[in-house]
Amino acid sequence: MIIKNLDEQIVKSISVEEGVDIEILRRGISNGRIVIPMNARRSYIKPIAIGEGLRTKVNVNIGTSGNVIDVNMEIEKARIAVTYGSDTIMDLSTGGNIDEVRRILIEASKPLPFGTVPIYQAWIEGVKKYGGVGMPSDWFISVVERHLRDGVDFTTIHAGITKELAEKAVRSNRIMPIVSRGGSMVAIWMLENNKENPYLQHWDYLIELFKEYGTVISLGDALRPGTIADAHDILQIEELINNARLARDAISKGVQVMIEGPGHMTMDRIATDIKLMKSLSGGIPYYVLGPLVTDIATGYDHIAAAIGAAIAAAVGADIICYLTPSEHLSLPNTEQVKEGLIAAKIAAHAGDLIKLGGRVARRDIDISLARARLDWDTQIALSIDRERAKNIRKQFGNAIKSCSMCGQYCVFLLLEKYLANRGSTTLNLDEVLARIIKG
Amino acid sequence: MIIKNLDEQIVKSISVEEGVDIEILRRGISNGRIVIPMNARRSYIKPIAIGEGLRTKVNVNIGTSGNVIDVNMEIEKARIAVTYGSDTIMDLSTGGNIDEVRRILIEASKPLPFGTVPIYQAWIEGVKKYGGVGMPSDWFISVVERHLRDGVDFTTIHAGITKELAEKAVRSNRIMPIVSRGGSMVAIWMLENNKENPYLQHWDYLIELFKEYGTVISLGDALRPGTIADAHDILQIEELINNARLARDAISKGVQVMIEGPGHMTMDRIATDIKLMKSLSGGIPYYVLGPLVTDIATGYDHIAAAIGAAIAAAVGADIICYLTPSEHLSLPNTEQVKEGLIAAKIAAHAGDLIKLGGRVARRDIDISLARARLDWDTQIALSIDRERAKNIRKQFGNAIKSCSMCGQYCVFLLLEKYLANRGSTTLNLDEVLARIIKG
Repeated sequence: MIIKNLDEQIVKSISVEEGVDIEILRRGISNGRIVIPMNARRSYIKPIAIGEGLRTKVNVNIGTSGNVIDVNMEIEKARIAVTYGSDTIMDLSTGGNIDEVRRILIEASKPLPFGTVPIYQAWIEGVKKYGGVGMPSDWFISVVERHLRDGVDFTTIHAGITKELAEKAVRSNRIMPIVSRGGSMVAIWMLENNKENPYLQHWDYLIELFKEYGTVISLGDALRPGTIADAHDILQIEELINNARLARDAISKGVQVMIEGPGHMTMDRIATDIKLMKSLSGGIPYYVLGPLVTDIATGYDHIAAAIGAAIAAAVGADIICYLTPSEHLSLPNTEQVKEGLIAAKIAAHAGDLIKLGGRVARRDIDISLARARLDWDTQIALSIDRERAKNIRKQFGNAIKSCSMCGQYCVFLLLEKYLANRGSTTLNLDEVLARIIKG
Repeated sequence: MIIKNLDEQIVKSISVEEGVDIEILRRGISNGRIVIPMNARRSYIKPIAIGEGLRTKVNVNIGTSGNVIDVNMEIEKARIAVTYGSDTIMDLSTGGNIDEVRRILIEASKPLPFGTVPIYQAWIEGVKKYGGVGMPSDWFISVVERHLRDGVDFTTIHAGITKELAEKAVRSNRIMPIVSRGGSMVAIWMLENNKENPYLQHWDYLIELFKEYGTVISLGDALRPGTIADAHDILQIEELINNARLARDAISKGVQVMIEGPGHMTMDRIATDIKLMKSLSGGIPYYVLGPLVTDIATGYDHIAAAIGAAIAAAVGADIICYLTPSEHLSLPNTEQVKEGLIAAKIAAHAGDLIKLGGRVARRDIDISLARARLDWDTQIALSIDRERAKNIRKQFGNAIKSCSMCGQYCVFLLLEKYLANRGSTTLNLDEVLARIIKG
């Protein structure tokens, strides 16, 4: 068992929520195919399991930026993420007092597992402290430790990009050599100091740290493609191989690991990407950003990402990082966080209908039955965003029996007499669910 | 050559716009795999070709409903459809003076090809005129003729649902026996009058009519699935087979045809659906609604539809009917029309990156190059919705050199020095496009 504070109660509650046998869960946890991000120092947190055979999870990124520092707005984003059903929250803050902001957002994000990217703080404070990028390698590790001490449940560690890979990347024919912010920081540190990746240098100590805190290592993809033209080149796959090797090492030493992936990628590459990652890593959880299936969706990138995420989830991605309509343009505002989260949740569920079949189709069936009965209260109650559903329904005045799209020519009104004749016995719920399982 | 007013100029202009050889176009047009909706009575209209080897097109539905009759709003929706790049517009009006509304919307929709669903008007006015659903069968045909005379470029004809299929449907174990509004009208007429489908009864005369006007028959899918649990049952496929047979007959008589498909369907069924339709019909154009890949996305159904549409386009769907966030809830307002159209366009393009490869990737490459250079003017100019991109960019105050997501920690600023060293020769545009072709 590689999770420190994993008691019977947690495994049981996950088993019930996911509809998965306890023994299967235990096996997945012990062979590294399922992780439960939960820092040993956390008092209360909702146990979320990520990995094989489980519902695809969704992550929301929040946090200040270098030029938009509004902690209250970030708190509100955390509240939205909790309200609209995010499974985890990551703090990517790079502005203000980063330690303080993190502690505030950990509180605001309860009860969700909380992740961070310690390299940001190491870079920003390191540059100040050391007057440039000459900070010593163990400085990066000390910042990781600060995060773990605060109770962080998972952190991104860019250990897969070696100095050699960074050199290749900046000389590559990619349109965008590196688009990972944390990845570029590690790369620059290596190039400027002519030293190997600090997380690799101190890997054994890092492993000890993550083991002590029970925190999940999320191996960052510094070389993820930032445009569809850069996808699946040698750089991306070499880093993936490095990450897979590190992941197996961490698992063998009792540490939980995920690997991070995609970015921009045409639809036809997604299945290959997921299957290759699973094969190389031995099936450990894959944490996927998007993928964005086109580069041109500026202002609507949550949709380009939802298309890719749905395909990724169907093939086996385990947790999807949301993207907002403001991607590539701006820090998101609160409304954009909500839009992005809901798009990602739709994608994850669409994928789960393939990955997990009828087990997760109950809500689709229930909303469809309500739709066929013109039972609006149930339809709205089952909606991801009830407020929005309610407002749209009445946007042209008071609600009628059907909806304002068809009015009196609604099929369910037109066919009422015929459908009444069918009788209720023809709709056996198990049989209906079985149709979906066999899809 | 089955298009009446198809002159050299039209084929040439399509050849240039699509980047497809004139001879290939000609062959596709003559064997029915490509259609050009253009009524012989139309004075000016932009020629749009739909079918094999061509860019996936997007259709926007507009029109009054039984209880929201605001012609000015519908005119504004047509304007939005034209502005944001819809390829065709369909008028589904069921409220007000339908003839008058249609004529107004044909004007407002210029220069786009314009489609209608004549059964709506036949039903609504027929019920009034004949005091019930006992209207004679040729009444339905006379309404079709009225539409063709007005210059309509393509119309939905629900000829594939036979009386036997309608009887099976209303007794079926589907959650939603019929969700096509026009389909339910034809079904009820057949069931109440115990007569065969009026469009089938008068099929030969219909063929003469469509031939005379050069209008495209879009064979409606009365039995499309309205929930994922009803997808790919015997009813849907039997109607598809009927439509395929009718399509081949129409083509053999010199009439252009599309077949309409999907609705709700989990992702894993989409490729099967498209491939089966293409096989049964001999590769004629497939006009697909969504598909919606889950039933639970109420309020955000444009996203559920975009996921399905992207997959459908990648596999070979030829024209995608948009869906708006108000689907299942209300007639859309103008903003929702825009949201739905843009989601469908993103999906169509994502699919085309697979279907057509590098031929359509130029805009992705150009926006990515601009992104890497922090050239915001070009990025915004290449955006689907410039206004929105511009507004998001400055939503937290005046624009900076990078964007407010990363501020001074933007990868392109951090890596500036390294990327300057690469030199411009490493980025050969043909080579970059080739990477995508080979995806």
